[in-house]
Amino acid sequence: MTELVRLGSNENLLGPSPLALDAIRNACAEAHLYPTDQDQILKEKLSAAIGHGISPDHIVLGNGSGDVLRMIAQTYVSPGSQVVLPTPTFSSYKRVTKLHGGDVIEVPLKDYQIDLPGLLSAITPETTLIFLCNPNNPTGQIVTHQQTEAFLAQVPDHVTVVVDEAYIDFVDDPAFPRMTELITAGYNVIVARTFSKVYGLASLRVGYGFGKLESIAPVRDRRHSFESGRMAYVGAAAAINDEVHIVNTIDMVRNGREYLYEALSKIGLNYLRSQAFFVLLTDLPLDAQYIVDEALEQGVILRHTTVFDMPGYVRISIGRLEDNRRAIEALTNILQANDLI
Amino acid sequence: MTELVRLGSNENLLGPSPLALDAIRNACAEAHLYPTDQDQILKEKLSAAIGHGISPDHIVLGNGSGDVLRMIAQTYVSPGSQVVLPTPTFSSYKRVTKLHGGDVIEVPLKDYQIDLPGLLSAITPETTLIFLCNPNNPTGQIVTHQQTEAFLAQVPDHVTVVVDEAYIDFVDDPAFPRMTELITAGYNVIVARTFSKVYGLASLRVGYGFGKLESIAPVRDRRHSFESGRMAYVGAAAAINDEVHIVNTIDMVRNGREYLYEALSKIGLNYLRSQAFFVLLTDLPLDAQYIVDEALEQGVILRHTTVFDMPGYVRISIGRLEDNRRAIEALTNILQANDLI
Repeated sequence: MTELVRLGSNENLLGPSPLALDAIRNACAEAHLYPTDQDQILKEKLSAAIGHGISPDHIVLGNGSGDVLRMIAQTYVSPGSQVVLPTPTFSSYKRVTKLHGGDVIEVPLKDYQIDLPGLLSAITPETTLIFLCNPNNPTGQIVTHQQTEAFLAQVPDHVTVVVDEAYIDFVDDPAFPRMTELITAGYNVIVARTFSKVYGLASLRVGYGFGKLESIAPVRDRRHSFESGRMAYVGAAAAINDEVHIVNTIDMVRNGREYLYEALSKIGLNYLRSQAFFVLLTDLPLDAQYIVDEALEQGVILRHTTVFDMPGYVRISIGRLEDNRRAIEALTNILQANDLI
Repeated sequence: MTELVRLGSNENLLGPSPLALDAIRNACAEAHLYPTDQDQILKEKLSAAIGHGISPDHIVLGNGSGDVLRMIAQTYVSPGSQVVLPTPTFSSYKRVTKLHGGDVIEVPLKDYQIDLPGLLSAITPETTLIFLCNPNNPTGQIVTHQQTEAFLAQVPDHVTVVVDEAYIDFVDDPAFPRMTELITAGYNVIVARTFSKVYGLASLRVGYGFGKLESIAPVRDRRHSFESGRMAYVGAAAAINDEVHIVNTIDMVRNGREYLYEALSKIGLNYLRSQAFFVLLTDLPLDAQYIVDEALEQGVILRHTTVFDMPGYVRISIGRLEDNRRAIEALTNILQANDLI
């Protein structure tokens, strides 16, 4: 039987950073010791990598970026709080808001773009948080530096803005926000990032957030214990310097996007050009769940967008060339079986 | 320079479970994939190991048992809640209570024993949780099955009791509670345990809780994402069956306790006989911080009990025979330097 092609969860099919694996294997001998210093070492490496005055004190680590989002919600959301977010977007923002008793105020995308004026209009005195995913998941669309700055300038002081940049490494649009500049300018914004994508370390559960001290310190105070394990910290710290793996992964995603654009056009499927790790199929000629089920029959895992409360679309993660080819083959077979090509 | 002897943090100085390390190294190749099935596999292995009708549905996993305690507090504590606990005890219970806005009601130990009638008397309509550490940290004393059952029978329905059994594997007193029986009997009690002690996996951050469905389900609903990473889940699952390492660790701790009792008596230091991974020195003839500082000068890390809000005592974790000898040597030198032996 052919191996399953995993294009449903935005995993890095090039595999984990080899330097991270070396570090993890070396750390195994100390698996019995609490990870007392490794978190600080990781924060120092992140500080150096982020630059622009972001010191270890401006950084909070988490057990995956989902844990960072949870700590942010725990800090800024309580019963009665309103949390404003675009819809559809990554589902965790809703989940952590509801876990802490907050009300979710959803602002629909406009033509697949985040409606920044709509988000501003949704702010009330009860609003404590706004979540932005940039590039947005599952659309792969970005808001620009200029748009973000104009937006932040209009957000009132009682609202913290969280910008989830899980897919930043795959962006090639030069208009993408330089968030460190906006943090330095004093905006009340927290950036969240992950080691699960470009570094290929989804199984380790390491994420981080950064922002100005006043925004980050209360979040870090929610830390109850070690956020992650020793292997996770040392693996993440090693991955930051794995230039070869980083470049290869970015190349894989950029080349994979171009391959998919061309191949999808050839078989007559519509899609959104993406700045992220995935491509969203739109205006499908068949039922989305049917497509996902039939692709799975052919060994290819795709994602129906039900988890985003936006049924009717299919998201394809970018894999290696052979993975992407398998996805196109499956889609071609499905269209042929339905006399659509 | 001689290596530091780490007897301050109850780490397993025999090292990590070798079977766990094999499993972790094998899992490295899949470090780029989300750990989607490994949590269920671990729960099934735990269910089989715990027995007595505790199914995977009765179990909640956490990023260390500290994370389980956090989820329990998040479920049962909100501003205005009162949480009753003995003092001194493990410091995390206070921390997670305060993180969720609860008030801590402390009931002092009586002659180093947990004062169960005192805990009962402290319950009010606002009480939502009681934390018991059994054996208690840092005293190593236990409450018995009979005491626990009589206690639970008097706890009102609106209160959940959490029993932290981090050190259960080192208990040899047959009167120790059989918590599965009390769960089956229907008491509203959650047992918390960890992979950091007998399995030697402190760096992985895996802990778990179990109880009847009505107690556990709302806690598990607090799960925001994967609790732990793939390496952590598979390492923990493998460690459960590492009988050789488990037996060797338990032998190390039991033999180490006996060695320390005899050696401490010889140099005239008082201690509590312990059912746990550590021995508490009492009625010290010198300042506790001075002893800890001087031991560190000699390369031995001991624990002053300030973190338990009970200054004036020293806790010694049990290590290998050579570690325990180094501790006794250091203590002997300190006493000699002060003309106390």
